[in-house]
Amino acid sequence: MPSLHFGVVDPATLASHDGLTLLKGMIAGEFPQPPISEALGFRLVEAEPTRVVFEGTPELRHYNPIGVVHGGFAATLLDSALACAILSTILKGETSTTLELKLNFVRPITKDTGPVRAEGRLIHRGRSVATSEGDLKDASGKLYAHATTTCMIIPVKI
Amino acid sequence: MPSLHFGVVDPATLASHDGLTLLKGMIAGEFPQPPISEALGFRLVEAEPTRVVFEGTPELRHYNPIGVVHGGFAATLLDSALACAILSTILKGETSTTLELKLNFVRPITKDTGPVRAEGRLIHRGRSVATSEGDLKDASGKLYAHATTTCMIIPVKI
Amino acid sequence: MPSLHFGVVDPATLASHDGLTLLKGMIAGEFPQPPISEALGFRLVEAEPTRVVFEGTPELRHYNPIGVVHGGFAATLLDSALACAILSTILKGETSTTLELKLNFVRPITKDTGPVRAEGRLIHRGRSVATSEGDLKDASGKLYAHATTTCMIIPVKI
Amino acid sequence: MPSLHFGVVDPATLASHDGLTLLKGMIAGEFPQPPISEALGFRLVEAEPTRVVFEGTPELRHYNPIGVVHGGFAATLLDSALACAILSTILKGETSTTLELKLNFVRPITKDTGPVRAEGRLIHRGRSVATSEGDLKDASGKLYAHATTTCMIIPVKI
Repeated sequence: MPSLHFGVVDPATLASHDGLTLLKGMIAGEFPQPPISEALGFRLVEAEPTRVVFEGTPELRHYNPIGVVHGGFAATLLDSALACAILSTILKGETSTTLELKLNFVRPITKDTGPVRAEGRLIHRGRSVATSEGDLKDASGKLYAHATTTCMIIPVKI
Repeated sequence: MPSLHFGVVDPATLASHDGLTLLKGMIAGEFPQPPISEALGFRLVEAEPTRVVFEGTPELRHYNPIGVVHGGFAATLLDSALACAILSTILKGETSTTLELKLNFVRPITKDTGPVRAEGRLIHRGRSVATSEGDLKDASGKLYAHATTTCMIIPVKI
Repeated sequence: MPSLHFGVVDPATLASHDGLTLLKGMIAGEFPQPPISEALGFRLVEAEPTRVVFEGTPELRHYNPIGVVHGGFAATLLDSALACAILSTILKGETSTTLELKLNFVRPITKDTGPVRAEGRLIHRGRSVATSEGDLKDASGKLYAHATTTCMIIPVKI
Repeated sequence: MPSLHFGVVDPATLASHDGLTLLKGMIAGEFPQPPISEALGFRLVEAEPTRVVFEGTPELRHYNPIGVVHGGFAATLLDSALACAILSTILKGETSTTLELKLNFVRPITKDTGPVRAEGRLIHRGRSVATSEGDLKDASGKLYAHATTTCMIIPVKI
């Protein structure tokens, strides 16, 4: 059975699968989870049509100068979650690119926060533009950050 | 002479210096650069009143699944640059916390992009709220992403 | 019985009521609906703790040059809805000011769209900062725009 | 000589002119200024490649319930300015649609503020996506609001 590993999915595989199959394949270990997941310590754990969840654990290595986790940690998990909620609706031969991301930080995250989950949920799927939203919560459901994004849907170049 | 190192600035140091002195001290190696800078490979290189620059080099380890640098890399550098442009205006006894960050991604970044610079510039400094903007460019000045942020200015808890 | 009228609520009334009482009073006609509601043809129709609804009907006078309703119409209704969702949580002696608003436009609105409803819902209420979200839909529930906002909670100056 | 008037530009005129010609024609009174300009009392006053200015005067009829100008007034002028900065780069046969708008409100506007100018400036013009930024200032140059937007460039349907 394939296990969790990291890397880039090759273009031919991207072009020959729909988005949900790719996401489920990453969770199953059939396809690699992305390099950034290894660098920052988070990974995709759930994927269904219009909704995905990434999970990670804040550590000291994620800190900013003033003693809490850097906003880039939440930004990276939420960017992943929101983009993949849209990716879960992508047909074979299409891909999606993020145009913009808007984040709100409502509470500081620390190394004592424990594991956090970034959930992404589709808001609107048009033919060439899609939007999604999501939030970052700890194991008790406490909210730390929320976000929205706009992605453009484009044909895969083969 | 102190050299570049990573870590969290202790609360007493934070409370006893204005923002610009802290930023200049990080560049000089007197104070540590933050842990996230080590994890993602970027650092503060310029700081003056209302303007700072962070620099980093995109690598394969920053990649997303679809073969380009993850949006979280630009998000982290720009969050740093925009927050520190505001921090550069912070008086002794104050600190700043990011309420929201809005990013636009205008071109894909790859490992062949070379070093990139995230510049943050103050837009407005009120008594309790400040805003800043910034952009991420390569060595030739080509634009990859731009952003704005809103921070709240609060007294340091001592 | 008081009926629907337009104007500014006087500062003494603002300072002596909590937000939800003010909102319910506007709907009941006890307090005026704001002047902008008359200028653009929309009004507050529902208010409960953490949630409000504004309603308006797009007309030719709301059009932009290229033949659909100007984005400012949706922006005004959503700004109202999101700010008032937060206002519904404001205690006597506090007020709220909008720091930023982020809007997504997902479909064009025309004079044939019919009445639209902008619903605002609280996301997070901190001591000094709150965030909310909302959407603009027609009578059939079709989505035209969605938004998030950040407000600061401040003591009323009396 | 044609004078200032309000209305929608007919589709054949839109399809047969580039964006800058349309904008200059509105200023000259050759083409109508949009209906929303009449409803809220503002108009296009300057247009050059990548930059436009709208001007309006805040009045009591623009007020929100709590005694200052409603955020929708600044939102409408800035949406116009940012969208038209992009429109100024549009070729004959193309049009532009706003995907998202992000606004920061940094100071309250009142009926005593006097005339305000919303300037829009292009940030990035890609083949199918463009971004712009802008700000709203009074006659003395004091800043009241700033914004960014993302637009999609699409062929005009004829």
